[in-house]
Amino acid sequence: MPFEPTDYLPYDFANRRHIGPSPEEMAEMYAVLGVKDLDHLIDETVPKSIRQAETLDFGKPKSERELMHEMRMVAGRNKVLVSLIGQGYHGTVTPPAIQRNIFENPAWYTAYTPYQPEISQGRLEALLNFQTMICDLTGLEVANASLLDEATACAEAMTMAQRVAKSKAKAFFVDRDCHPQNIAVVQTRAKPLGIEVIVGDPEKMEADKVFGALFQYPGTYGHVRDFTPQMEALHGADAVGIVSADPLALTLLKEPAAMGADIAVGSVQRFGVPMGYGGPHAAYMACRDAYKRAMPGRIVGVSVDAHGNRAYRLSLQTREQHIRREKATSNVCTAQALLAVMASMYAVFHGPKGLQAIAQRIHRKTVRLAKGLETAGFKVDPKAYFDTITVDVGPLQAAVMKSAVDEGINLRRVGESRVGITLDEATRPKNIEAVWRAFGIEKTDEDFTPEYRVPDEMHRRSGYLEHPIFHMNRAETEMMRYMRRLADRDLALDRAMIPLGSCTMKLNAAAEMMPVSWREFARLHPFCPKDQAEGYRVMIDDLSARLCEITGYDAMSMQPNSGAQGEYAGLLTIAAYHAANGEGHRNVCLIPTSAHGTNPASAQMVGWKVVPVKSDSNGDIDLDDFRAKAEANADNLAGCMITYPSTHGVFEETVLEVCKITHAHGGQVYIDGANLNAMVGLSRPGDLGGDVSHLNLHKTFCIPHGGGGPGMGPIGVKAHLAPHLPGDPRGESDGPGPVSAAPFGSASILPISWAYTLLMGGEGLTQATRVAILNANYVAKRLEGAYDVLYRGRNDRVAHECILDTRPFADSAGVTVDDIAKRLMDCGFHAPTMSWPVAGTLMIEPTESETKAELDRFCDAMLAIREEIRAIEDGEMDRENNPLKHAPHTMEDLVRDWDRPYSREQACFPPGAFRVDKYWPPVNRVDNVFGDRNLVCTCPPMEAYAEAAE
Amino acid sequence: MPFEPTDYLPYDFANRRHIGPSPEEMAEMYAVLGVKDLDHLIDETVPKSIRQAETLDFGKPKSERELMHEMRMVAGRNKVLVSLIGQGYHGTVTPPAIQRNIFENPAWYTAYTPYQPEISQGRLEALLNFQTMICDLTGLEVANASLLDEATACAEAMTMAQRVAKSKAKAFFVDRDCHPQNIAVVQTRAKPLGIEVIVGDPEKMEADKVFGALFQYPGTYGHVRDFTPQMEALHGADAVGIVSADPLALTLLKEPAAMGADIAVGSVQRFGVPMGYGGPHAAYMACRDAYKRAMPGRIVGVSVDAHGNRAYRLSLQTREQHIRREKATSNVCTAQALLAVMASMYAVFHGPKGLQAIAQRIHRKTVRLAKGLETAGFKVDPKAYFDTITVDVGPLQAAVMKSAVDEGINLRRVGESRVGITLDEATRPKNIEAVWRAFGIEKTDEDFTPEYRVPDEMHRRSGYLEHPIFHMNRAETEMMRYMRRLADRDLALDRAMIPLGSCTMKLNAAAEMMPVSWREFARLHPFCPKDQAEGYRVMIDDLSARLCEITGYDAMSMQPNSGAQGEYAGLLTIAAYHAANGEGHRNVCLIPTSAHGTNPASAQMVGWKVVPVKSDSNGDIDLDDFRAKAEANADNLAGCMITYPSTHGVFEETVLEVCKITHAHGGQVYIDGANLNAMVGLSRPGDLGGDVSHLNLHKTFCIPHGGGGPGMGPIGVKAHLAPHLPGDPRGESDGPGPVSAAPFGSASILPISWAYTLLMGGEGLTQATRVAILNANYVAKRLEGAYDVLYRGRNDRVAHECILDTRPFADSAGVTVDDIAKRLMDCGFHAPTMSWPVAGTLMIEPTESETKAELDRFCDAMLAIREEIRAIEDGEMDRENNPLKHAPHTMEDLVRDWDRPYSREQACFPPGAFRVDKYWPPVNRVDNVFGDRNLVCTCPPMEAYAEAAE
Repeated sequence: MPFEPTDYLPYDFANRRHIGPSPEEMAEMYAVLGVKDLDHLIDETVPKSIRQAETLDFGKPKSERELMHEMRMVAGRNKVLVSLIGQGYHGTVTPPAIQRNIFENPAWYTAYTPYQPEISQGRLEALLNFQTMICDLTGLEVANASLLDEATACAEAMTMAQRVAKSKAKAFFVDRDCHPQNIAVVQTRAKPLGIEVIVGDPEKMEADKVFGALFQYPGTYGHVRDFTPQMEALHGADAVGIVSADPLALTLLKEPAAMGADIAVGSVQRFGVPMGYGGPHAAYMACRDAYKRAMPGRIVGVSVDAHGNRAYRLSLQTREQHIRREKATSNVCTAQALLAVMASMYAVFHGPKGLQAIAQRIHRKTVRLAKGLETAGFKVDPKAYFDTITVDVGPLQAAVMKSAVDEGINLRRVGESRVGITLDEATRPKNIEAVWRAFGIEKTDEDFTPEYRVPDEMHRRSGYLEHPIFHMNRAETEMMRYMRRLADRDLALDRAMIPLGSCTMKLNAAAEMMPVSWREFARLHPFCPKDQAEGYRVMIDDLSARLCEITGYDAMSMQPNSGAQGEYAGLLTIAAYHAANGEGHRNVCLIPTSAHGTNPASAQMVGWKVVPVKSDSNGDIDLDDFRAKAEANADNLAGCMITYPSTHGVFEETVLEVCKITHAHGGQVYIDGANLNAMVGLSRPGDLGGDVSHLNLHKTFCIPHGGGGPGMGPIGVKAHLAPHLPGDPRGESDGPGPVSAAPFGSASILPISWAYTLLMGGEGLTQATRVAILNANYVAKRLEGAYDVLYRGRNDRVAHECILDTRPFADSAGVTVDDIAKRLMDCGFHAPTMSWPVAGTLMIEPTESETKAELDRFCDAMLAIREEIRAIEDGEMDRENNPLKHAPHTMEDLVRDWDRPYSREQACFPPGAFRVDKYWPPVNRVDNVFGDRNLVCTCPPMEAYAEAAE
Repeated sequence: MPFEPTDYLPYDFANRRHIGPSPEEMAEMYAVLGVKDLDHLIDETVPKSIRQAETLDFGKPKSERELMHEMRMVAGRNKVLVSLIGQGYHGTVTPPAIQRNIFENPAWYTAYTPYQPEISQGRLEALLNFQTMICDLTGLEVANASLLDEATACAEAMTMAQRVAKSKAKAFFVDRDCHPQNIAVVQTRAKPLGIEVIVGDPEKMEADKVFGALFQYPGTYGHVRDFTPQMEALHGADAVGIVSADPLALTLLKEPAAMGADIAVGSVQRFGVPMGYGGPHAAYMACRDAYKRAMPGRIVGVSVDAHGNRAYRLSLQTREQHIRREKATSNVCTAQALLAVMASMYAVFHGPKGLQAIAQRIHRKTVRLAKGLETAGFKVDPKAYFDTITVDVGPLQAAVMKSAVDEGINLRRVGESRVGITLDEATRPKNIEAVWRAFGIEKTDEDFTPEYRVPDEMHRRSGYLEHPIFHMNRAETEMMRYMRRLADRDLALDRAMIPLGSCTMKLNAAAEMMPVSWREFARLHPFCPKDQAEGYRVMIDDLSARLCEITGYDAMSMQPNSGAQGEYAGLLTIAAYHAANGEGHRNVCLIPTSAHGTNPASAQMVGWKVVPVKSDSNGDIDLDDFRAKAEANADNLAGCMITYPSTHGVFEETVLEVCKITHAHGGQVYIDGANLNAMVGLSRPGDLGGDVSHLNLHKTFCIPHGGGGPGMGPIGVKAHLAPHLPGDPRGESDGPGPVSAAPFGSASILPISWAYTLLMGGEGLTQATRVAILNANYVAKRLEGAYDVLYRGRNDRVAHECILDTRPFADSAGVTVDDIAKRLMDCGFHAPTMSWPVAGTLMIEPTESETKAELDRFCDAMLAIREEIRAIEDGEMDRENNPLKHAPHTMEDLVRDWDRPYSREQACFPPGAFRVDKYWPPVNRVDNVFGDRNLVCTCPPMEAYAEAAE
């Protein structure tokens, strides 16, 4: 009867939209698992001892519409002024075609880091374009893609310099004209590593006392200086020279390599990425070819596939933390890939002529501005500048700043008597006139003719962006199709499940994403007056309170802009706490061998000694070993780093004991929050004994992975650690140093996580956790018999992920975990996490957002693969010439002559693969060895394209 | 030198972004064409006699950023109140996933009408879902997809009733409780056809005096009535019963078929499509199976492909105007496909339970509202209602309306002493409380408990939306993937050129599209107080002025919401003019045989007699024939309808003479604006002698085609016709009747066209025209020799399109124009316009937005096809078993055993086709005959899906 009230809630986001399995599907899954209902499954799975006392209650969850209303209210409390503050953040014009087709396109933003190159060729090409752009602009040979922000890039460059310098000096020189946040983050990073940071005038640098030096170009107060003499001096002392350079300025100015720089870093924010109150945006690093193996971060390289066709991949991964652990070049992992893609598209969109024209316009506007001020009698510095000047206003500093705000303009406070003004792509003549009015000058833009305020010897002489990709037709039609073609080559969440263990590839709902595009969130400068960011404050405060409630911590820092950054920040906080207690000598960190690679890498960054702890046969921490090592290191125990539930996908009951032991020996407990998606609403790390945890908002809290970033890694701490959280990047607070360039990291993506908590409510968040556990157990159950599931917990249940052992197939059929991963591509899937935390295994994390139907499609594919392995085991199929070894198959394979002992049908349409909607990997298996041996990390020359076309 | 000023303008939207060929490419094209430059080409092509005197000057064009700023200012002048006006327009909640993945996704919005079914399976499926939803909700057997708005659907239903009724009565009954705009548009439509419209009380209807009757359900003032007695009476008199029904109400209420209705119409706006100040949104029509061949508009049907697999296609096209011309069922052409897709996705998203729950909530809210009013002593009507009530307020009508506005609520003025209130999905408790306050009542929502105010006998008894598609998992992850899969099956402008002659498939720039999503444009009710729509007024006034300047007309009406609607409105205007001059008898319209099919169909709609005029051998209008027919019909000549440049793609110099002759014989000249993209800035229809023209804003002015709508067809007229333009749909003005439901048609997409004119400026618009001509001539030149180009103009040049003659291949190789069109799909192209205006030809219109590279890819494909034809001609290839006859090829073909006399490589990768980024048609050639013989126009039953899966 249509008028009988139904209990169906059409706007129930949590249960209908975010959580994948429908109630009917869940009932079917209980039957398969042999449990009565979800309560029972959770009781079987999650030990009582670790369950939280009270249920999570945030009041009534919001509908998507209520969310939008709330978001609009909060956004409205941010005031969007024109910020001419500079200091590394600039107004920019995001081309609408890039905004719509990349930033707002799930095909781009839901992708994962391109570790599986065959299904990531689109974003790998875009990132290769990024590297090419950076190499060209800096003049250096090798670039990565990409880093978190300019300040952390500076810090990374410092440690890299220490790795490559022949000089054995222990000090590092920093140009006093560097942006304050760059200096501050470098100082933070230097301290635990025992590096002395000398901030000073480059003219007075003593090269023989340092292993490296960092210069800002142009300087934070606008100076355009030639650092050639400094570079020569450094090289004479076997030290390394680093320039942090504005890439837009480099279209006009002599490039770092031409000065002799060994490393260049910088921010590409102004290449079309909004300021976003601090982020996200990408930073870059480039270096001489000789240093490439010491470079942190991801490097896209060119290799070939099984048929010798060109194929892109991530190169030199042996440098990275998932392999080198505490010996890695850095803990950098998630690294702003989506923003690097946007910046590279901005360069493709404008080309060298366009970028140069934009830079020229900015310079001419700045000269006009300066002339107006000079004509009125103001003293303007410096003589040679690109886009930034400072003006001596004596005691009127506050008055001028205030007057500018009244005109809708934010200026920069410089020292006690100066104001700084930095113009950008978005500055309009009326903004310049408003600045003049703030100084009491009534002029119009046309009263002055521009000239060049850069001496001839500082002009750039070399070409850049000469590769054809930067000279494609600039029609939007063509650009749109290029972006679509690249997107289509990749397999992202918008087409299929990405069951990556430990990565929590869940739904990034449209409602959560939309506010990020709003100007009220996008256009704020991170250092704008606080009263202009009231909306951000309200949101960050509320989100922090919710995250504290979820985790059982007492305070949050939103500064870390990645998970690894969060680890580092958390360890710094512990170190600061020990120091404050007069126990600064504590420097031993216990880390289980199964930990994320970033854990030991982060520990190394705070100068700690990593002591590995064994796992027992079930994958749990070996308590005896842990106790023994804690005791042995009791005097120096800084703490331990553990993951909960464990990286083996198990709710270990020993966690409480581990925390007790650590505390008993004077250590602090770091609980890695990577697996928080298995805990929210059920268990709180703060209750278990954790003193600090980072939260991967891009895992558990729905920020999309963006093909390898953005991310956010805020840390929660117990009250005793709160005074030691990271300080303000402007160096304006006394406390511990900052870890990121901006006070709240990548603030503009926080609305996503906040929206998620508002939409789900406490009950919805808890249900999400429960269903994540249900989904994982369902997959484990369905694959039982075919594959061995390693490491089960109580009642043979797994947590939110499960590990399949594929090692036996090496002997039995010559099939590796790689073969299975590539074969899954034929089935239309991204592989689970490969060979981590155990080599030769696959770790599957389905998340709560996948429907039973999709889980079944995946299981069908896995079971069919097992049958193919069995066919090899049984001798029915050849050990080398089989669908697993030849996977993935491309459409080219279908067109070619077919001499395989299996059919085209079997090759391309194994169970799981869609027929009509089949996803085709654009290349066959990529040759990793070839790529590392023949490293090419810029776009191949035009001839290579011609060859490929033939 | 980097500081030497460049003349490169990075923000030059017109030349860099909108226009495809780069300056370098254009130079190469001049060389191929043998002209010095573009000026020379245009001089050769466009006769001096028709060139406009002055260049088009709109001042400085805006950059994309300046555009956004301007748009924001104008949008800010619209005030977004909560409109509870009802009257066919309702607040709704667009699911963000649908907004982002369909409405804002170029893969959906840049698609063309699915005339080529093999490359349109995705949107055909979505539209089939729409039809299924409509059939289910109305209970009728056949539905179309879709119509322009509810009012025109009512008018279409009336004429359809006349076609199918056995009754020979001349009158048509209309329920006085129909929405006023429905009554007004029906009256407009009826008048020229000699139909008497009787508006009255259904209780007093005299069935034997009418051929049909239209009822509103629920009534415009809220009444829920059972029209079963009326239907019985009508059937007794061999007349036809029509119900215009709210589809959301039908989830609770007895459906039209259960009352005996023969036809049902209505608007699906409230299924997730914003009100948009009147549109766009889709209307529906459903009817008994027996009447399906009389139904107007497009019907998606199910057929099979060459391999017997299920495939969708447009059915029963023989009813349509491009075939039947003045004997067509209607002139409906462009018809809101994108909005029908959105509405169908809304139903898929919510499913029957969700829709029912939404309807119940609305009803319960309405009852609460009514109880509050009743308790306070107000008299509330009617007794039985769904979502609408009226309240007697005596002389306080104005005061209550004003008081409501002060509370942020728009109510409806009803008569002199009542106000109407209609609630919707978006109404919140606080809105109800605000309404109460407007009546002086201080109550809270919780003070009242809802009950049902619909008598039991009016409850719906039958099920609906039982097909599995409406029961798929409602997780956003699954929905997102479904929308992506459908999008991927289709070939739209975001992947390839769509060179459809006469359809002007040009760039729909992201910057132009973005404002359409803004709430200030999306959330206005078309009948809200004018002072709340100040932003719309400013925009519409400015856009009208620009369009007048472009066309040489003196006034514009923005009411027609499609091109065909514009034609009809223009002819009505002419008729009204004649009538006002006492020459109402003039009813002969001269139309060249080459005219668009909508021309004669529109003439028929205003009751005119169509006299066809011959073309001469060159395709020009045969002047002698024209003169003779004008003279012969001088006494009754209403006017002529011509297209300029002609549908043959030629700038005819005779146009001036044609206009003179028409005027000399008392007629008015209608110049069809379909080809205006060849004129803007060069020639003005108003200057040539045109009295009225419609402008397809979805062709020349960048509104995307949306897979078959939305569109806008405003008409421009000379001053003498201005008093006779369509009147206000609310019937509040005295003038001529309205043609659409809303005063400004699909107002919310007007920002797209306005943005285009702002971004381009006069010079840019003119350059676009010139490059459109360049591109067409380039294609004609490159294909010369391989294909005969029919109908050239002066100096052998074509206008903005060219016609290739493929008729000779029928004899020489047994190859039809269809074979070529399908073969182009293998090359990754949508075919040009087929067999129009000349059977057996292809008409190519590249538009200015395509780059030379894309034109070359297309020409390469066409030349390769010609070589394949030659191979057949030469006997090297079989006449039946060849790539043309088997086209398009699917990936299934590659997997199957291959016994063709040509290779897989030749089949699937002919010149033009991308290799890595190959587009695969999801089905082989669709069998049209089978589909029309076995008409299925709802989703096939589940078993059919199971079969297909096997």
